[in-house]
Amino acid sequence: MNKTGIAIHGGAGTILASQMTAELRAAYENALLKALQEGNYILQANGSAVDAVVAATVSLENHLLFNAGRGSVFTKTGEHEMDASIMEGKDRMAGAVAGVKQVRNPIELARAVMMKSDHVFLSGEGARNFALEQGIQLEPASYFFSQFRYNQWKALRDSGKYTLDHSSPLELLMKDKKFGTVGAVALDRQGNLAAATSTGGMTNKNYGRIGDTPVIGAGTYANNTTAAISCTGHGELFIRSVAAYDVSAMMEYKQVSLETAMQEVVMQKLKAIGGEGGMIGIDAAGNISMIFNSEGMYRGMIDTNGKVAVSIFRS
Amino acid sequence: MNKTGIAIHGGAGTILASQMTAELRAAYENALLKALQEGNYILQANGSAVDAVVAATVSLENHLLFNAGRGSVFTKTGEHEMDASIMEGKDRMAGAVAGVKQVRNPIELARAVMMKSDHVFLSGEGARNFALEQGIQLEPASYFFSQFRYNQWKALRDSGKYTLDHSSPLELLMKDKKFGTVGAVALDRQGNLAAATSTGGMTNKNYGRIGDTPVIGAGTYANNTTAAISCTGHGELFIRSVAAYDVSAMMEYKQVSLETAMQEVVMQKLKAIGGEGGMIGIDAAGNISMIFNSEGMYRGMIDTNGKVAVSIFRS
Repeated sequence: MNKTGIAIHGGAGTILASQMTAELRAAYENALLKALQEGNYILQANGSAVDAVVAATVSLENHLLFNAGRGSVFTKTGEHEMDASIMEGKDRMAGAVAGVKQVRNPIELARAVMMKSDHVFLSGEGARNFALEQGIQLEPASYFFSQFRYNQWKALRDSGKYTLDHSSPLELLMKDKKFGTVGAVALDRQGNLAAATSTGGMTNKNYGRIGDTPVIGAGTYANNTTAAISCTGHGELFIRSVAAYDVSAMMEYKQVSLETAMQEVVMQKLKAIGGEGGMIGIDAAGNISMIFNSEGMYRGMIDTNGKVAVSIFRS
Repeated sequence: MNKTGIAIHGGAGTILASQMTAELRAAYENALLKALQEGNYILQANGSAVDAVVAATVSLENHLLFNAGRGSVFTKTGEHEMDASIMEGKDRMAGAVAGVKQVRNPIELARAVMMKSDHVFLSGEGARNFALEQGIQLEPASYFFSQFRYNQWKALRDSGKYTLDHSSPLELLMKDKKFGTVGAVALDRQGNLAAATSTGGMTNKNYGRIGDTPVIGAGTYANNTTAAISCTGHGELFIRSVAAYDVSAMMEYKQVSLETAMQEVVMQKLKAIGGEGGMIGIDAAGNISMIFNSEGMYRGMIDTNGKVAVSIFRS
């Protein structure tokens, strides 16, 4: 049986140590640790990488600190529209949803699209109808309400602006730029890889905007012969860069390591076009990389030796 | 000044010569020729590759023979929901829309997203609101009505089935499998590449299903250093394969030609997972490739020597 590994992220961006209290930092670290443990529990019980990344992502979706699921930001019209995707590396099956309302855990809906439909990508009202048919749990708007996000949205609402940021519960962090997507990648005992990503999108978003999170190849990709990758950042630039698949393609066609490929995509190619953000990945041997070109990225891993680490800033 | 080139497609699939009358074949060939001429006119007037692929795609969208724009198939609820995307190869900017209703020419809306918004990917009602703000032409439902498509839909409506097919106006072709997406790729005198793709999706589609057409990297991709590519086929498998970008990545990382890369993606990788369909591409030198693993693909090109060719079957 193979060794297992799991890595998660809770968003990247301008996260300032000077503005983060010890209490807030501990809250983030505890939430990351809990999500890692939820995913790792499944891996240690010989569960699948798919179930492990869903469990870790659900844990982050259920936490108000992160901009996904329950903690999702408000759209221009005062609603919550969420995106998520998942891919498994053995058969390269995938599932994705965009612009879904009321779904408690969008990553569970993405898994249902992958496992129980003929499709890969469902959107809007139709995706919610599919959720109802599949018995996926819905919640009223009040479930997704938090005073912090509401205040954030009100401040932006009539400005015509939108932000990709702010999953912090403190008003004083409102000016920080942070991309509040969450995600997970894992290797299970059967040697299978999986990647999952979930987001509430941009505060005050308009026009049914879709970022990279539900776009297979951009925000999420997995292939047992290369790696499983989940991204967080300025979605438009990750889409144009086909960022997640580019790491896999470089590994396959140039025979470079996950770390080398990810360094080139995040620190060279994305950076060159202003594509702020980062990504996490795990390869078939369990090597984990977590790279970001922003000031910080909420992240954590339990590697093949069982070593646990969570971090926020650059070191 | 560089030489110019343009190629287009009007869908791929099981197109049976035995069931196609001379009149119908002529109608398809004339429509393809007209679209090529619309695009080529712009290239010869020193216009941009972006404007050329939009002009060619608009011509196909306006024709009832093809499943895009006016000729779009009916959804499960008896509506028309269209997807489109565009990408240019110089700065790798992109625009895409999914699930838009009433928009006369979805490819023009995709271009507006690319040129006039901060976003890449808009969807549903929000995308239509953006269209209204940009003065993009809308049409009533009657504009998209055709008796053939209506009959096709009625036959499927209560069956719980959907099809990716059928852009033929003849009832007797209804059982053919055909993927009725349209698209264009071009090289302009400035040496810039562009790719565009547009579709009405699957007959009787449900759940807000999105195929590969609006997914940058899957259905559409362009990069001046490699090629511009537009796909048509079983969208779910093209998404999972990140098909369009895979051709570009192979060219960049393995230093193979457009033709070699496209042969491997369409005839090996897609075929191996049952991914029926095809794609067209043009590289920076103006070399054009049009490859499909289905029985036929409506296609045409005007190459760098001015040679004009349209075809449907495998020759």
